[in-house]
Amino acid sequence: MSETKTYPEIKRGASLLLAWRLEGKRVLLIGGGVVAASRLGFLLESGAHVTLVSPAPLEPSIAHRVATEPEHLTWHERGYGNPDAATPEEMAADKELPVGDFDMVLTAVDDVQLSQAVCTAARTARTPVNVADVPPECDFYFGAQVRRGPLQVMVSTSGAGPKVAVIVRDTVANAIPADVEDAIAGVGALRTELRQRAPGVGGALSKRRMRWMIDTCDAWRLDQMGAMKDPEVRRQLLDDGWEQHKVLRPGDVGAAPGGVKALVGDVVRAAPAWLPTLAAFVAGAAVGVAWVDRVRR
Amino acid sequence: MSETKTYPEIKRGASLLLAWRLEGKRVLLIGGGVVAASRLGFLLESGAHVTLVSPAPLEPSIAHRVATEPEHLTWHERGYGNPDAATPEEMAADKELPVGDFDMVLTAVDDVQLSQAVCTAARTARTPVNVADVPPECDFYFGAQVRRGPLQVMVSTSGAGPKVAVIVRDTVANAIPADVEDAIAGVGALRTELRQRAPGVGGALSKRRMRWMIDTCDAWRLDQMGAMKDPEVRRQLLDDGWEQHKVLRPGDVGAAPGGVKALVGDVVRAAPAWLPTLAAFVAGAAVGVAWVDRVRR
Repeated sequence: MSETKTYPEIKRGASLLLAWRLEGKRVLLIGGGVVAASRLGFLLESGAHVTLVSPAPLEPSIAHRVATEPEHLTWHERGYGNPDAATPEEMAADKELPVGDFDMVLTAVDDVQLSQAVCTAARTARTPVNVADVPPECDFYFGAQVRRGPLQVMVSTSGAGPKVAVIVRDTVANAIPADVEDAIAGVGALRTELRQRAPGVGGALSKRRMRWMIDTCDAWRLDQMGAMKDPEVRRQLLDDGWEQHKVLRPGDVGAAPGGVKALVGDVVRAAPAWLPTLAAFVAGAAVGVAWVDRVRR
Repeated sequence: MSETKTYPEIKRGASLLLAWRLEGKRVLLIGGGVVAASRLGFLLESGAHVTLVSPAPLEPSIAHRVATEPEHLTWHERGYGNPDAATPEEMAADKELPVGDFDMVLTAVDDVQLSQAVCTAARTARTPVNVADVPPECDFYFGAQVRRGPLQVMVSTSGAGPKVAVIVRDTVANAIPADVEDAIAGVGALRTELRQRAPGVGGALSKRRMRWMIDTCDAWRLDQMGAMKDPEVRRQLLDDGWEQHKVLRPGDVGAAPGGVKALVGDVVRAAPAWLPTLAAFVAGAAVGVAWVDRVRR
């Protein structure tokens, strides 16, 4: 059993971090305050159709979205459910907008009883639910997020608190390379074109396609991948690379992506951190010598 | 309508990044290869009970988990569903393990027909489903992830490809501050103790609690927050801070968290980036003058 040592121990206590697809899905958002506003931004960016239930007044950014996003956001100006109901089941039983009609339910209201009733109804209907500020009533949490075009990064601290997540998020955001959007756009275009050329899922072709994409990406630096946005570069990669069972490097492609800029980038990147300090010392020494020379002359 | 300018435009095309809670939930994992192995690691860390369906042989790390995690992982050594069925519905109709019995379903098999049949069955049963390598058949995707104890970071590239996500993930992982685990543990402990002292959800108390946690975190640097792991520090923060409607800084707390190290950290952090270069220039000038002086003397 000596090989058991090669597998890391399972450290429980994590959540499963996911990218949920909401394009064209229906989401129920109950509440119209600041917490609902932050949820709404994420939901609209994901392409969901949001049904918002809240009495007026709405938080200003929500009111703005209601006015400007009529195709993606429908506002029902009222409370959710039946406030006079005798049981929690009846409280969350909204005849016009039952939770079971939605692909996801979010509540962001101060009414704890209503929140819990909605949660129970959602669980019964098997609709994923998030109840703001009530962790045990959530199938999922939100984390602090960064978005740069197609790149999304989420930071989760397992409930230690949003502030620490935001600090880490800001540190992480600063570390994201500047060329990443271009790189993702380039590789994404190449991947899409490859799938058109060699369609189908599963089996040997799928495996070869995945392997070729990984090998090609391994042969290109992040700051070079943006060149793949050029259709001619992609044509060469697919004709002379994929079709010939070869992996082409940036130098093999006529467009010479990156070019001089990439070359200079290489040198600058390769320079050790103490180089400016050494250069300054040498410059200082030279100026010192020159100055003495001039004074003594 | 001039205030409309204050709200950023909605940029669609994102996914909704979520932390899904699987503690105590039941997950069906179909497949026993390398893709299934990567899913299994995430699932076990999240505390789910995994039902694995796959003929032998299993990928070695999966075989290892089957042997060492009997309480969290049950292996059914067979294929899923009815391969001889006439319709897709029948193909995915596994009498012993119907998808509707699970809180989440993942398939990672080369059999595209079976994958699609399972996806359809999961959608009917309203069970969230991920079909490896078939994006349109997924309610959610996985991203490249980093975990440091309670901190989890996910990188998603909206399907541009796993390789770019891994490059960004590695860059991001290097940028995560070393003290972050301690900071999360400290703030998490403080938050838990505050909730015990001032329980309840929703309403004014909940708002005050959230505000006080944010203000306190704002007054502490990340590398100082680890001191909150000390019960005496937490007691002072809660007795002299929360109870007195005050926000205490590290210096206000007897344990003087961070101490000299934090002070030196302050100075070093405050030094501008060009300072070493300037110092080197001055040193170089001094050496240059001294050298000329010595030679000429």
